[in-house]
Amino acid sequence: MTTGVRRRMGVEERKRQLIGVALELFSDRSPDEVSIDEIAAAAGISRPLVYHYFPGKQSLYEAAVRRAADELAASFVEPREGPLGARLLRVMERFFDFVDDHGPGFSALMRGGPAVGSSTADAMVDEVRQAAYEQILAHLDVAVEAPPARLELIVRSWVSLAESTALIWLDGRRIPRRELESQLVRDFAALTAVSAAYDAEMAGILLRVVADEPADGPFADLFGRLVALGAQDTSAASREAAGVPGQRVEA
Amino acid sequence: MTTGVRRRMGVEERKRQLIGVALELFSDRSPDEVSIDEIAAAAGISRPLVYHYFPGKQSLYEAAVRRAADELAASFVEPREGPLGARLLRVMERFFDFVDDHGPGFSALMRGGPAVGSSTADAMVDEVRQAAYEQILAHLDVAVEAPPARLELIVRSWVSLAESTALIWLDGRRIPRRELESQLVRDFAALTAVSAAYDAEMAGILLRVVADEPADGPFADLFGRLVALGAQDTSAASREAAGVPGQRVEA
Repeated sequence: MTTGVRRRMGVEERKRQLIGVALELFSDRSPDEVSIDEIAAAAGISRPLVYHYFPGKQSLYEAAVRRAADELAASFVEPREGPLGARLLRVMERFFDFVDDHGPGFSALMRGGPAVGSSTADAMVDEVRQAAYEQILAHLDVAVEAPPARLELIVRSWVSLAESTALIWLDGRRIPRRELESQLVRDFAALTAVSAAYDAEMAGILLRVVADEPADGPFADLFGRLVALGAQDTSAASREAAGVPGQRVEA
Repeated sequence: MTTGVRRRMGVEERKRQLIGVALELFSDRSPDEVSIDEIAAAAGISRPLVYHYFPGKQSLYEAAVRRAADELAASFVEPREGPLGARLLRVMERFFDFVDDHGPGFSALMRGGPAVGSSTADAMVDEVRQAAYEQILAHLDVAVEAPPARLELIVRSWVSLAESTALIWLDGRRIPRRELESQLVRDFAALTAVSAAYDAEMAGILLRVVADEPADGPFADLFGRLVALGAQDTSAASREAAGVPGQRVEA
């Protein structure tokens, strides 16, 4: 009986080890560039033994994506304490840690393609997007069951913006990631503000959120800089907006 | 000779007709829900004759995606005249016309999945993204060969935001499309402004663009509304930003 239990534990441990090895290889190169032979060699076992645990590369890839998806979803979990800007910044730091660690694998999975995509892996990606979306709603103190349609759009499209920003960053890393982490937090405020400018319900949510922001937070800093930038804009548009025709905006 | 020419023309015409029929069917339902029998029936020809022109559903699907990709890329072509806000708004109107006409096909293609994705179709989608990106750069009077890294990021991520906004809109159509067309134009200004707040080169591009904006354009209207919204915000953040500690922002 004891032996049986030990034997089952051994199987799980071996699977966990293989998944870890596979995830590391799939993180450095796209899945079609990684062979089962290579995974076997990295794990220090024979090729047939790999097949004993996983029927093929696809199932091992899916197990690796599963582990990565759980890790990524966990990066969006953040205590609901303190100003929202600081919370989102910590989430973005962990998101870029993940992207940094799993660059090529992340790109391959997100960009799809026949050698990579499987409906299982795609479903896991959607699951992470949904988890991120629900986390953000929770931080906004909005019930996940029936959010306002405009808020749902902003949060989902911001999650997608974080993805595309990370993918563009990975392609050359020409902008420091710290800058993009802050930028995405500010993008969230900006996208919310654009919607809030035309919708009273969104305006209420935005004003509630910024009411808790400290003067040295990412939203306040952005606001101050935009006011300064607006003062340099002498266009008809900004004169009209400020109600001062022919003059600069007084900030 | 004349007969030979007519026969070749006939082949091309038949192919065009089949592509048109297929595109219409793929627009209403996802590709795995459409059979070759159905395409043959809709075109008024036999199933073997469809196979005479296209080796299988995949190649017909790719030809349909090719036509749709050309149509979508064309929707981003806009004369370089007048204020940028109005140009982008016309582009977004055509983009939503396309999304509206090809809803389920657009969703299926963008969301990928094994029944749909082919590397050829994915490459065509990337081609359209690239065409849209190059069009926007041209409207900003920035050479496509060496744009600033931050501008490239903003434009590419905005193209991706337009995609995700359209996909979310298609899922229930709970927000009027006209609102989202304007919102995406303003999102472009907002994302650019967030970057411009921290980068002198981006600030120069933003100020150059808004200098040509009329007082009744989408950017000016947004700016005026945000100023009004800011006046309602009594947080420490906005007081600090406006340099008026303890008081409301004077707009």
